[in-house]
Amino acid sequence: MNLPRVVRYEDGKLLLLDQTQLPHHERFLCLRRAAEVARAIKLLQVRGAPWIGVAAAYGVAIEAQRLPDDKLISGLTRAAQMLIRARPTAVNLSWAVKRMMSVLKRADLTPRELRRTLVVEAKTIEQEERARSQAIALKGVKVVPQKAVILTICNTGALAAPGLGTALGVVLQAHQEGKRVEVYACETRPLLQGARLTAFELLRARVPFYLIVDSAAASVIERCDLVLVGADRIAANGDTANKVGTKMLAILAKEAKKPFYVVAPASTFDFQCRTGAEIVIEERSGDEVRRFGRCQVAPEPAPVFNPAFDVTPARLITAFITDAGIVKPPFKRNIRRLLFG
Amino acid sequence: MNLPRVVRYEDGKLLLLDQTQLPHHERFLCLRRAAEVARAIKLLQVRGAPWIGVAAAYGVAIEAQRLPDDKLISGLTRAAQMLIRARPTAVNLSWAVKRMMSVLKRADLTPRELRRTLVVEAKTIEQEERARSQAIALKGVKVVPQKAVILTICNTGALAAPGLGTALGVVLQAHQEGKRVEVYACETRPLLQGARLTAFELLRARVPFYLIVDSAAASVIERCDLVLVGADRIAANGDTANKVGTKMLAILAKEAKKPFYVVAPASTFDFQCRTGAEIVIEERSGDEVRRFGRCQVAPEPAPVFNPAFDVTPARLITAFITDAGIVKPPFKRNIRRLLFG
Repeated sequence: MNLPRVVRYEDGKLLLLDQTQLPHHERFLCLRRAAEVARAIKLLQVRGAPWIGVAAAYGVAIEAQRLPDDKLISGLTRAAQMLIRARPTAVNLSWAVKRMMSVLKRADLTPRELRRTLVVEAKTIEQEERARSQAIALKGVKVVPQKAVILTICNTGALAAPGLGTALGVVLQAHQEGKRVEVYACETRPLLQGARLTAFELLRARVPFYLIVDSAAASVIERCDLVLVGADRIAANGDTANKVGTKMLAILAKEAKKPFYVVAPASTFDFQCRTGAEIVIEERSGDEVRRFGRCQVAPEPAPVFNPAFDVTPARLITAFITDAGIVKPPFKRNIRRLLFG
Repeated sequence: MNLPRVVRYEDGKLLLLDQTQLPHHERFLCLRRAAEVARAIKLLQVRGAPWIGVAAAYGVAIEAQRLPDDKLISGLTRAAQMLIRARPTAVNLSWAVKRMMSVLKRADLTPRELRRTLVVEAKTIEQEERARSQAIALKGVKVVPQKAVILTICNTGALAAPGLGTALGVVLQAHQEGKRVEVYACETRPLLQGARLTAFELLRARVPFYLIVDSAAASVIERCDLVLVGADRIAANGDTANKVGTKMLAILAKEAKKPFYVVAPASTFDFQCRTGAEIVIEERSGDEVRRFGRCQVAPEPAPVFNPAFDVTPARLITAFITDAGIVKPPFKRNIRRLLFG
């Protein structure tokens, strides 16, 4: 499948597809410093939990190329902290940065070898994510009937994760295998990742779909066979943080008695969080809601509450589809079993 | 309370506040023909079920002023059909036009008297709607606690109905009476009546509120005390057509065990419709979703499903708040009792 290219490492530089310009322009940012990568993550120029982790890993790698030997450790430590702080909710970000930083503990490496090893490590993380997407798609496709109408939100395709993606990856895989899938794609306010990115990917892959405003999900849920969503962080009990609107879809699915699947790499489980109550939900600027691109919508003084994510209670989730397998309730026991055997 | 002026009849002309320009510009259209009023209704320059009915009534009245005597009856009959066809879902539109047309049956009137009587009739309809809003507000305010967080969608204030409005009218009345109300206002995609109009009215009335994207309703429902929404048409069994997103709020309210009230004049009940399945749901242009003001959002070829309304099943509704009283379940019996005694 002809997937969009999202990142490319090139000789100390990171070329990054600017997703805020999609679907109108396919422009690449040329980043040379970890601070620029952190900024791109903050501005959602790169987004989707798995790609955020990969981009941050490359952020550490490119920072290493420009630091002199005597500042390598201190500079990378600072860069790591900055990258982790760029966005609070997705677990992959801190996970990927910490893994990069663990390379520094190898006392046998010269600065030169360290720089090279960090690039290899970032590429490895990307490759592993790609393999995970593939594993997820192959496991997830089994829950998709031969003819299926699927409801989804945000973008969880190749623009969100290396490879086919997570939730949308399952859709793409089902389509590739010749299943007759049709998608209702929520536009995903405020930043319209559904309208801009999922529509872009589905058109490109020739998957039949309708774009809807998020609140119209209640109008279409009865004609859907299943709901597929991604995840940014999953607590030990199965409570799931994902794009704002996900909880709405879960409640609609429960009311309409439709299966609701969370599709994510197993690395999205965070045992530091016992329940969803412990997950930090990022609140973003009210201007994302008041304005739209250059258009002012709401009166300038209107107060806004703009959470970027919400937490779907575990009891509303039918199953988790992960690269390591499908996890059904009871989640607390089965998540632990999946991860620790 | 300092309410925005929405229509003014002036010597054969209808001055109409162009709501598509709000909150940025308070511009008035000067309309001289029923066709222009039908167009304004279609383009949502006037909206809100009660104001649509009033505007259409004035549409008949201004058309009468310009028609010559010998074409008065045939011309008005054509104009009435055109006005009724402008939008299919709100019941008030055909109700108001039919009432205007019933004036034509009075054989005792000369053409000149007929023209004058039609203007008086339109003004009477407007005054009656104003009185209805007042009655609704006074009845509705009783369900609002002394301190209340209220979730609402679309615009149901003075820009939707003569007087204080319907659902938002209850909020404004509670605020006027000194109750400590706080509102979560859904922005209401695709045309953002919440962000543009409700935010405008709440700022003007100094009611504390937060604007949210529609799908964030699931994030705030637990901290709300009640949900108040308007209605465009209510079937005999209580199924309610209203702005797309209303059904979502009703399902969220049920899940969170919060009361969900539909606030509308008793004229919104339509006994021609036995259930919601018989209500025609207007589908509007996909460009409303693909574009955002002048900004293109989704790829141009993206297919869109854009229903303007949805139908909330009666079983999700706590009660109807009307000018004639509050209607609780069982709805089929109690709606009939309210209307026919």
